[in-house]
Amino acid sequence: MADGSARANPLDALFRPRSVAVIGASSDPLKIGGLPVSFLKTQGYAGRILPINPKSPEIQGLRAWASLREAPGPVDLAIIAVPAALAEGALEDCAAAGVKGAVMFTSGFAEIDAGGAEVQARMAAAAKAAGVRLLGPNCLGFMNIAERIFATFAPVVNAGVPPLGRIGLVSQSGAFGGFAYSLARGRGLGLSHWITTGNEADLGFAECVEWLAGDPATDVIVGYMEGCRDGARLRRALEACRAAGKPVIVTKVGRSEAGAAAAASHTAALAGEDAVFDGVFRQYGAHRAGSIEECLDIAYAATTAGPPRGRRAGLYTVSGGAGVLMADAASAAGLEVPELTAETQAAVRALVPFAGTRNPLDITGQVIQMEGAFRASLAGMAADGTCDLVVNFLSASGLSPATGPQIAADIAAVRAATPEVPHFLVTLASPEFRAVVEAAGCPIYDDPGRAVRAAAALAGLAEAFARPAPPDPVPGAPGLSVPPDCDEPTALEALAALGLPTAAFRRAATAEEAGEAVAAFGAPCVVKIVSPDLAHKTEVGGVTLNVSGAEAGRAAASAILASAAKAAPGARLRGLMVAPMRRGVAECVIGVQRDPSFGPVVMFGLGGVHVEALRDVTFRAAPFDEAEAMRMIGEVRALRLLTHPRGAPPADLPALARLLAQVSRVAAASPGLDGCDMNPVLALPEGEGAVILDAVLIGG
Amino acid sequence: MADGSARANPLDALFRPRSVAVIGASSDPLKIGGLPVSFLKTQGYAGRILPINPKSPEIQGLRAWASLREAPGPVDLAIIAVPAALAEGALEDCAAAGVKGAVMFTSGFAEIDAGGAEVQARMAAAAKAAGVRLLGPNCLGFMNIAERIFATFAPVVNAGVPPLGRIGLVSQSGAFGGFAYSLARGRGLGLSHWITTGNEADLGFAECVEWLAGDPATDVIVGYMEGCRDGARLRRALEACRAAGKPVIVTKVGRSEAGAAAAASHTAALAGEDAVFDGVFRQYGAHRAGSIEECLDIAYAATTAGPPRGRRAGLYTVSGGAGVLMADAASAAGLEVPELTAETQAAVRALVPFAGTRNPLDITGQVIQMEGAFRASLAGMAADGTCDLVVNFLSASGLSPATGPQIAADIAAVRAATPEVPHFLVTLASPEFRAVVEAAGCPIYDDPGRAVRAAAALAGLAEAFARPAPPDPVPGAPGLSVPPDCDEPTALEALAALGLPTAAFRRAATAEEAGEAVAAFGAPCVVKIVSPDLAHKTEVGGVTLNVSGAEAGRAAASAILASAAKAAPGARLRGLMVAPMRRGVAECVIGVQRDPSFGPVVMFGLGGVHVEALRDVTFRAAPFDEAEAMRMIGEVRALRLLTHPRGAPPADLPALARLLAQVSRVAAASPGLDGCDMNPVLALPEGEGAVILDAVLIGG
Repeated sequence: MADGSARANPLDALFRPRSVAVIGASSDPLKIGGLPVSFLKTQGYAGRILPINPKSPEIQGLRAWASLREAPGPVDLAIIAVPAALAEGALEDCAAAGVKGAVMFTSGFAEIDAGGAEVQARMAAAAKAAGVRLLGPNCLGFMNIAERIFATFAPVVNAGVPPLGRIGLVSQSGAFGGFAYSLARGRGLGLSHWITTGNEADLGFAECVEWLAGDPATDVIVGYMEGCRDGARLRRALEACRAAGKPVIVTKVGRSEAGAAAAASHTAALAGEDAVFDGVFRQYGAHRAGSIEECLDIAYAATTAGPPRGRRAGLYTVSGGAGVLMADAASAAGLEVPELTAETQAAVRALVPFAGTRNPLDITGQVIQMEGAFRASLAGMAADGTCDLVVNFLSASGLSPATGPQIAADIAAVRAATPEVPHFLVTLASPEFRAVVEAAGCPIYDDPGRAVRAAAALAGLAEAFARPAPPDPVPGAPGLSVPPDCDEPTALEALAALGLPTAAFRRAATAEEAGEAVAAFGAPCVVKIVSPDLAHKTEVGGVTLNVSGAEAGRAAASAILASAAKAAPGARLRGLMVAPMRRGVAECVIGVQRDPSFGPVVMFGLGGVHVEALRDVTFRAAPFDEAEAMRMIGEVRALRLLTHPRGAPPADLPALARLLAQVSRVAAASPGLDGCDMNPVLALPEGEGAVILDAVLIGG
Repeated sequence: MADGSARANPLDALFRPRSVAVIGASSDPLKIGGLPVSFLKTQGYAGRILPINPKSPEIQGLRAWASLREAPGPVDLAIIAVPAALAEGALEDCAAAGVKGAVMFTSGFAEIDAGGAEVQARMAAAAKAAGVRLLGPNCLGFMNIAERIFATFAPVVNAGVPPLGRIGLVSQSGAFGGFAYSLARGRGLGLSHWITTGNEADLGFAECVEWLAGDPATDVIVGYMEGCRDGARLRRALEACRAAGKPVIVTKVGRSEAGAAAAASHTAALAGEDAVFDGVFRQYGAHRAGSIEECLDIAYAATTAGPPRGRRAGLYTVSGGAGVLMADAASAAGLEVPELTAETQAAVRALVPFAGTRNPLDITGQVIQMEGAFRASLAGMAADGTCDLVVNFLSASGLSPATGPQIAADIAAVRAATPEVPHFLVTLASPEFRAVVEAAGCPIYDDPGRAVRAAAALAGLAEAFARPAPPDPVPGAPGLSVPPDCDEPTALEALAALGLPTAAFRRAATAEEAGEAVAAFGAPCVVKIVSPDLAHKTEVGGVTLNVSGAEAGRAAASAILASAAKAAPGARLRGLMVAPMRRGVAECVIGVQRDPSFGPVVMFGLGGVHVEALRDVTFRAAPFDEAEAMRMIGEVRALRLLTHPRGAPPADLPALARLLAQVSRVAAASPGLDGCDMNPVLALPEGEGAVILDAVLIGG
């Protein structure tokens, strides 16, 4: 860095180099090897630029060297813009010259075929051995806007550079990165860094995000992801951002089956279940957006407005209908729309008798021009104490030369008087209006729904920042080792041994013993076949419900043994198990599975059709705490079946959350556990807990 | 109309007047009474303008009259811009002068209080008696862009007028209408008409839409709705648009509880269940959008591109990741992403060996500049026969002065060669690029998801246009008359008498008779209490399942009679009913309810938690045909439980659809039916039909 400030992170030499060599530099400023030289020259880079070209002693007016080995050191960053056949040699030159970081534009490696992947792996190993951090290959490079480092051949730079700002953008796709760059520029959004990661032979998306977490020039990170090879690294990066209070807003593609199929043919990254990404992003407080437009909407809000203290939205409007629209959008985005205090409502009515004052506060279109009424009513809402944020629909008032300036001044005054309540404006605006209100910390949108969603996203991010750090796995924590050929009672015993709440049961080797067990329980029981080979016991006649008394127990057991032996002649039968029938509020499912990116993850959903047919499930990476488990439970669409069951008291959600967190700790401590399916887990009424009725364990 | 073309519709005199009087005309062109005079003068209106002002013989340079009665006739349209106290008198003047239409800006009527509502009702009656069609009061008026009629005081006109185009915009809110107008203008979208309906004392939203359905200047209608007083009229208007092949794209607010609460305090319109609007819009092929932004996205597509022939999307991209994103968006929007033919894939690979060719077709960012490759591969996709439409992600290529012109020309050429396959572009674009591709019929978006959703919306609209007209109620069709104190067996008998499939059952006056009935069925039965007063029979111990044989039947019946008498001492008990237990694929619910806007509507959903806790239901206004019923069934989220039930054959969906359509015809023919709850309706396996197991009828 030219100004000599601290360079604590080893990646600083790559992303904030004091000198840049361009291997394959071209005299043509429109060629891949010429563009970065041209950008560095014309965009004001203050460090040394060293074009490397064996054929020309001068490149675009700069002294050039025939080889990096001959160029004067030290060289922090080398840009490699040579054909694929020469890339390995260029990287060797970097190693020999003691270069700290390399950006390789060259394509023709892992994205093409197995041979290319082999060369790429060899280059990655060589870079690692030599201590050269490598961005790419097959990437568009990066830009550091503050320090005017344009280590890229992205032609979009020629159309203009966005203003310097606080948003760092990381994209796994160069073309999409260029598109996002252009969108940001078109909106006048300020960027700090723009990084594309290409084939990720060394540096990946996660590590770039982690570097931005520590970068003093960056406040907000926008990411574009197609896949993730190192889930642990991504979690660490997201947690670094969360701990630093830096919002991460990410578009991750591949949500649908069609998308996953497209992704599989496009990227070599392992495709885990997409819903696991939802869970991990929520766990670390990152906002997953559905589009780059939404990413930029939220990044704009995050760099303009302060964080709201909660989810209570004050909706201010000059149109009743727009108020309704915003209330709809608020509800869909998880914001509350509380009624304003009677005092504030009365005060507004004193100014405007026919205003709607409950919330939305509908001041009507004609009144906005009434002397003082706008400022007073808006100030009343902001200071009411019921609202953590204000969304303000002004129609096209921000365009009006007559009333716009006063409205802008009023908004700025209200914002200054109640700085803890951020404002989000919906209006078409002149540049002058925009300048005044943005300087006052109010972002402007031209769609009410987008403003509301951006406000809700900031509220969600602020909540995540206030949480304690997610737990790390505890070394030596008790884990599960799955016995070979694990059957249901063995699984329940193994879980019970770790302190998980499992249902009482008895094993019975014979029908006679089963009858005794039923009698001993003295309550209606379920009698089930025991076998490590039968996943669906009902389908082989292996389950009888509601059995009472020794005789009925014996009879049921005999029938089950006969039926199972006949229906599944190859299955190993290990007698029976008998358990009292249990009734609860609702049946749930808790699962553990091993995700290719994130390792052990825990799934939660309601039982039956909710998990299988409706896929109404939610995930988290293990381990997590009770509070996180409670948020997880809150995400299922069928939540009402737990909180408002028909004709029953609500379920004991804290107990369910404790169980989920406990399972997550076990999962994190059990490297030999490939899967676990607790189905059903019975949610009992408030205060009575939750109990695992059946479990299947799958060993590694 | 100045050019003398046909004026077949009585509203033509209002919306296409040859002469306009402005009652309350002001010399100040910024006042409510001055703005329309100024607009009419400066925007090129060719008809006569007659300012009415008792104090001034000249207004803004025009000859003025003291009263409308003194002004020279005939006057087609009068704009009423006087204080509330003078409005009634102004309307009387209109009647006396033989005015055909009046637009009343004046506020202070139904939106204020009951007194205002009374005056408004009086004015509506007077207008009707005199044959004056009235728009307003409390509205912003209207604009007819083609004929330069600006019967409005919307100040947004001063900021500029949108280009003349084919989109008619109708808004129940003036402020929102002004906002939509400004958004359209900002995008350069062409409008034909802009109409705000205000308090709708006479002319309502529906009638304005219906007029636009017949307006030769309008191809596409964008609507903004808060409520609907006359559902029949709205249905007629939507059907008129559908039959004319004019897309209707509408934002209807009040979807959420918070929104409905806000709407209730804002508008006096009756609030039916919002989901009924979803059903009615689908029924008539209108597209309900979540935002005005989405409305304009689709209106832009509809006026630029032709309709696609189906839902098969070809996704063309210069970025693999954007391809995945578009595939996700296509899937969410109900588009298919079929694999391209082997021939086309091979042809593209011959041009670009490392292209992804399956679909998305990922030509990669570097290849777009390769001579001929872009046009050839795009043409290949468009002509492949597997794609009904193409969405094309070009990143920022449309901005590039180097490659943009060739790309635009290539797109135009492909579009011309395969005119039946519309293209939707995603790119940032220079004005020159935009002009070329829009002229070729390709709309441009700067967000992939928005492009995909607009394409999907056009596909849905095209499907609706191809359908036959929804059926009208058949006069004299057999309807239900609900007997007083109707109990369950009576309800089932009444439905059976109309030919609906109901389950077999027997009445039993005593426990003895119940036992005999069980025995007679010779199969496990359900025994139920009969009472017109017990909606939830299970809760009073009034139901026993799985009863076999006379003895068990008697015992069960005795227990039921005792239990019901004890639990509900006031209920009228009418003995028992006995029915064989039935098993099917899934239990469904079919309901009839009377909507405040649309009258009899039919609801469908899966039984149990799906209807009550999850509200996974769908509605249609009665009557409708089998095809519509099948679409209705296809809308429930839990559809898989019918099409892919676990361990069972799929349900007989055609039989369910027949039953739904049958119910809808009965509902339309039964003015005395206030509600009907068929719960459960058992869906049987394919080919076996559907059967109503239980029904409750509610009379008017």
